[in-house]
Amino acid sequence: MRAMAYDPDNIFAKILRGEASAHVVLDEEHCLAFMDLMPQAPGHTLVIPREPVENLFDLSDAGLSHLIVATKRVAHAVRAAFNPPGMMIAQLNGADAGQTVFHIHFHVIPRKGGVAMPLHARTVADAAELADNAARIRAQLDAG
Amino acid sequence: MRAMAYDPDNIFAKILRGEASAHVVLDEEHCLAFMDLMPQAPGHTLVIPREPVENLFDLSDAGLSHLIVATKRVAHAVRAAFNPPGMMIAQLNGADAGQTVFHIHFHVIPRKGGVAMPLHARTVADAAELADNAARIRAQLDAG
Repeated sequence: MRAMAYDPDNIFAKILRGEASAHVVLDEEHCLAFMDLMPQAPGHTLVIPREPVENLFDLSDAGLSHLIVATKRVAHAVRAAFNPPGMMIAQLNGADAGQTVFHIHFHVIPRKGGVAMPLHARTVADAAELADNAARIRAQLDAG
Repeated sequence: MRAMAYDPDNIFAKILRGEASAHVVLDEEHCLAFMDLMPQAPGHTLVIPREPVENLFDLSDAGLSHLIVATKRVAHAVRAAFNPPGMMIAQLNGADAGQTVFHIHFHVIPRKGGVAMPLHARTVADAAELADNAARIRAQLDAG
């Protein structure tokens, strides 16, 4: 993933500074939540930290904890408001993952049907490949 | 979303009890992480709490904080191990959202290309509809 400097002129930074408007649903010490302008479903909401951080990798543990707890709170509210049968939480890092605004945000997306965005492939992966992949990740965790 | 009792015989509960195997990459006090058996991409890893909880709505704030910090740690390791241009974090609640194992888990999924799982629709939603949706969610937050 390409490292970039945080751009203070991204749209979420402008919303945080009050220079751009948003349909805000939660405004608290550490986080802000507002409606996604291009929602996948009614109630699609974004939750962001006030901390000027581009992605998951750069956010502090404390900031991340505040952010996910705020996301849960918003998800509860979206569920209560829209009563969807399912709820997806997603957080995208990098343009290749679909990130379009480079200030970290969690998506809260009501879901139904369960088929449009499957997160599993249709076949079980080769065990040796999985073992090898696990080893590669463990090696990084041990190194970190 | 239908409320269900936690099923202690789900596959992740069995993995936590040592009754089923997994390609574990992280094993710590609060969380366990292991390879997804049906990966969307090489390195697709799941992170779960030891707490027997079905979904985001039922997990404690403290448990959720531990879980997301562990997820970040795993994501760092997956990035270092596979060097994908993008990384998706996803957490699905309910069969309608694509949840297939009813023990809460975060997906860490290397991504490239940015087109297969778009999280935004292609058109900006009607402002009045967004305002109404925001109001419905705020009302729930105020009530909670």
